Amino acid sequence: MKCRICKEEAVVALQSHNTAFCAQCFLNFFTHQVSRGIAMFDLFQAHERILVALSGGKDSLALCLVLKELDYKIAGLHLDLGIPSSSPKARACVEGFCAKHSIPLHIVDFVAEGVGIKEVKAKLRRPICSACGTLKRYYFNKTALDLGFDALATGHNLDDEVSRLFSNTLRWDESYLSKQGPYLPASPGFVRKVKPLWRVSEFVTANYAFLKDIDIHTAPCPYSQGASFPVLKNLMHNLELAMPGRKLDFYQGFLKRGRPYFAANTQPENTLKPCQKCGYPTAAEDLCSVCRIKELLAS
Amino acid sequence: MKCRICKEEAVVALQSHNTAFCAQCFLNFFTHQVSRGIAMFDLFQAHERILVALSGGKDSLALCLVLKELDYKIAGLHLDLGIPSSSPKARACVEGFCAKHSIPLHIVDFVAEGVGIKEVKAKLRRPICSACGTLKRYYFNKTALDLGFDALATGHNLDDEVSRLFSNTLRWDESYLSKQGPYLPASPGFVRKVKPLWRVSEFVTANYAFLKDIDIHTAPCPYSQGASFPVLKNLMHNLELAMPGRKLDFYQGFLKRGRPYFAANTQPENTLKPCQKCGYPTAAEDLCSVCRIKELLAS
Repeated sequence: MKCRICKEEAVVALQSHNTAFCAQCFLNFFTHQVSRGIAMFDLFQAHERILVALSGGKDSLALCLVLKELDYKIAGLHLDLGIPSSSPKARACVEGFCAKHSIPLHIVDFVAEGVGIKEVKAKLRRPICSACGTLKRYYFNKTALDLGFDALATGHNLDDEVSRLFSNTLRWDESYLSKQGPYLPASPGFVRKVKPLWRVSEFVTANYAFLKDIDIHTAPCPYSQGASFPVLKNLMHNLELAMPGRKLDFYQGFLKRGRPYFAANTQPENTLKPCQKCGYPTAAEDLCSVCRIKELLAS
Repeated sequence: MKCRICKEEAVVALQSHNTAFCAQCFLNFFTHQVSRGIAMFDLFQAHERILVALSGGKDSLALCLVLKELDYKIAGLHLDLGIPSSSPKARACVEGFCAKHSIPLHIVDFVAEGVGIKEVKAKLRRPICSACGTLKRYYFNKTALDLGFDALATGHNLDDEVSRLFSNTLRWDESYLSKQGPYLPASPGFVRKVKPLWRVSEFVTANYAFLKDIDIHTAPCPYSQGASFPVLKNLMHNLELAMPGRKLDFYQGFLKRGRPYFAANTQPENTLKPCQKCGYPTAAEDLCSVCRIKELLAS
């Protein structure tokens, strides 16, 4: 098979675009898709400072590298979760990547913060995944705000977004359907959140990471159990195999013709108040859920 | 496995309801589900006259029988499409069923009406399925109105409805999402359309037809090609296998929390006018699409 652009031997075939590329033309294609995703929803501007959440996986590192090559003003943020069997490897991977590409890196050490995931899991009476997600969102947001960044970028790709949309649609969850998208604007106590990889699939991102020779951290979290998300991702994958291009159509169609209906008619959420301990917004009367986890661990 | 109700030996296991039934308790369950589907959206009242569209397949005959056993005032309507290899068998099947159960039957003969599907297919330059659908909807509606029925009932089951909803949602088709449901109210020139089987799956309906010893017409249409619908039906089937009950949740959730957003914000459609030949509503300036097909065949 030949590259659609330069007619050299192709190395990546994309069924969803009914095309194939050589390595260099694929890298150009990827960069163009990300640029287009940023421009379509005006995710951020050239002069703004972007904090990129780096787990060590292919998506976050690919996002970081493509934003750097596009000359955006970026820095990395890694949360060291304190899970013995995986966190040191993930941290080393991110540190090596940032050193290699001269990208400033901020690290939040969950153990030093008093919220090491191993310790939280041992004390918590409910599933760890939900608490871990709460903690991660809290420190993403707090770090970006404390350090004065204009936006926090995460490596969610089209497959992540489509699976989540499918899940929200199956439940017709009005609250999520009124907000889900690659751009969540800033609000008091919350930094802007953006997902520049929303137009590229996991397959495309993996190819970019491979061709760019990015060393990635691949060990799955030892605490995660799977739940329903892989089922939905798999169904969407089968949809894409049967009808190439339908995943992106579904997501873009939602942003254009689905979300506006929900956004126009959904009541604003209850007013948040500052947490009495850390000052970050919470729906609770006194302490935010992160400060409550900290109290639990200190008890 | 034992029947959940009477503890006799079960003959039908329903994963979606995490239960099993003996024959008699299953028939009661089916009847209850249909009654509930009628009551939830007030599809029709006991005193109203309902015309049931009968193709000869399991869904339409099961619908007809359960409505008769529930003492609704029903009559059958069969469209004899004039397809040599399948229409005579389908017609004989419906005639036999109605005679056996003493149900009045109206038949529209497409060949006598000048729209035999074999002849339409030979003259038409576009795919026959869409024209056949147009003709069927036209004669369902016209016959119900001409004979003074209060509603037209079709045998669409939960799987049909969920596949269609999934298709409409994947495209975020605002027009369909504002209207799809088991109840489409009457409007000038259009009879009320109802789908009393909307809460029961194809599997459940097939079991009812089997246990009630209904002779069904099973030959697929020789002209239909499949298209994308079976793919979506299959994906929804796999969803149900992985998450029993999710299909009905998806559809009921749409009716409660999805459709209202679209219905509230969708512009009313362009005003329809009477067809200059047959008088039934059309968006065209002169002739409706059925009268145009008739002209094509007469030319």
